[in-house]
Amino acid sequence: MSLTVVGSMAYDAIETPFGKTDWIVGGAATYVAYAASNFVKPINQVSIVGYDFAQEEMDELTKRGVNLEGVEVVKDKKSFFWRGRYHMDMNSRDTLVTDLNVFTEFNPRIPDSYQGSEFLMLGNILPSLQTSVVQQMKQRPRLIAMDTMNFWMDNALDDLKKLLTMVDVLMVNDSEARQLSGQFSLVKAAREIRKMGPKYLIIKKGEHGALLFHGDQVFVAPALPLEDVFDPTGAGDTFAGGFMGHIANTKDISFENMKTAVIVGSAMASFCVEKFGPTRLKELKRADIDARIRQFVDLVNFDIQLV
Amino acid sequence: MSLTVVGSMAYDAIETPFGKTDWIVGGAATYVAYAASNFVKPINQVSIVGYDFAQEEMDELTKRGVNLEGVEVVKDKKSFFWRGRYHMDMNSRDTLVTDLNVFTEFNPRIPDSYQGSEFLMLGNILPSLQTSVVQQMKQRPRLIAMDTMNFWMDNALDDLKKLLTMVDVLMVNDSEARQLSGQFSLVKAAREIRKMGPKYLIIKKGEHGALLFHGDQVFVAPALPLEDVFDPTGAGDTFAGGFMGHIANTKDISFENMKTAVIVGSAMASFCVEKFGPTRLKELKRADIDARIRQFVDLVNFDIQLV
Repeated sequence: MSLTVVGSMAYDAIETPFGKTDWIVGGAATYVAYAASNFVKPINQVSIVGYDFAQEEMDELTKRGVNLEGVEVVKDKKSFFWRGRYHMDMNSRDTLVTDLNVFTEFNPRIPDSYQGSEFLMLGNILPSLQTSVVQQMKQRPRLIAMDTMNFWMDNALDDLKKLLTMVDVLMVNDSEARQLSGQFSLVKAAREIRKMGPKYLIIKKGEHGALLFHGDQVFVAPALPLEDVFDPTGAGDTFAGGFMGHIANTKDISFENMKTAVIVGSAMASFCVEKFGPTRLKELKRADIDARIRQFVDLVNFDIQLV
Repeated sequence: MSLTVVGSMAYDAIETPFGKTDWIVGGAATYVAYAASNFVKPINQVSIVGYDFAQEEMDELTKRGVNLEGVEVVKDKKSFFWRGRYHMDMNSRDTLVTDLNVFTEFNPRIPDSYQGSEFLMLGNILPSLQTSVVQQMKQRPRLIAMDTMNFWMDNALDDLKKLLTMVDVLMVNDSEARQLSGQFSLVKAAREIRKMGPKYLIIKKGEHGALLFHGDQVFVAPALPLEDVFDPTGAGDTFAGGFMGHIANTKDISFENMKTAVIVGSAMASFCVEKFGPTRLKELKRADIDARIRQFVDLVNFDIQLV
């Protein structure tokens, strides 16, 4: 079994109501890899970085079973850099700086050694690049999941819609689901979006949890009520990593197992937001993860006798 | 077993993105009674109405086992009237008219026949009146629950804080929990509020479900994902009615059973929002309720094997 992950590897500068960091590793594919590597090896990483991407970060990923053959290193450019500031409610953030740097020339190439990968996670990048990755896979992965964002709905909708016909699972947040479908009701939005291609839709609602839609079925996963959300950066990608990690580990793509995968993703995301960037993810032991998943069981479990 | 319910019985005029009604029965105690009467009889109602409150509404409540001895009828004044308009997201509403009418002279009196009631639901009214009801109960009910709102936090905070020391369960929405506690984090807000008195705190989050806090424990109930929220009027009171109805029916005030009660309340609220006012609640059969509760089981149920 293997999971191929495509997306950014970057550096971030983050300011939240609780603190500030000027230089911390980030990027969607980084978060996906940190989360998923707890469940499946190898992770076949596809990304691009500059000369400033620290060797120790590469080594840390390698140690966790992340294959970096598909990560292009550009010697004369800097890595993607983002600086942002979160507000108290953590749902809104201001982007202060976006330096694309090497990312302007990202043209993902799938190494031969990645062929045959059973699971594919397309992190949020230009839809045409996500499509290119799908097309490069000689054998279609058993499950293809993708993330995207409002920016591509505004600027590359045709490419996005073409890609949607090629994937199994779409993960977006509630406002993106509304924008993509033109429907305010998330139930109606889910129906419209699934007509566009993906049989499974996950709508992420941050502190309010996540919804999984498939056919006429829906599953609601809670978010763990936390003392503080210290830094939400990467939570969505960490969710994706936990979700795909569980699916790849169990090799079970049934709706029943996807429900569990959504809980695993939610558990991983609940760790991510506890410290800056992927700091907390780097510290995790398997026992921490098991205990957190048990907390999710307790969180939603109730006895019912219809009287 | 019996449940005593204190609160408004009123008429509403409601405008939502889906339609408009100029005259429909409403009021917190009305919604509580409609929901709770599916689970427990009698409901001992305490309220005040004017000459315009329709006899057929009274008869309908009586038929459902609602005791109206504690409902004062004022012959020369009109009932409480509220006119409001909801926006697309249904979380915000504009109050266009509030005619207190008879409500200015509401001074709830507990009839002798209500004494010994085991369960008490204090709907959202002036905290000093809620306190008066508690003080009139010669034997303290086994469980006292209350609702309140931001208006009383702004205008009667001392009375509210005094009342909080006398009740077991407080039900508020997320913004009210934040205002009352001065904490943005709902986990921190819950801790602060429970220091004020109530051992149990329910935070209602509308379409995002509800949280139940007790000691170090927390339970998350989903809201049912609906095609449309047609009219949210009374949903919180219907939740309270389902919650207290289940508790009174089972006579079990453990945290475990309160989790189930939160699900029952959520199920009843999910019906309430489907039509104007209490229209949908009036139509319900027991089988509808059982089926809806089963939907909630399916909504959150997942298999987990820690691997």
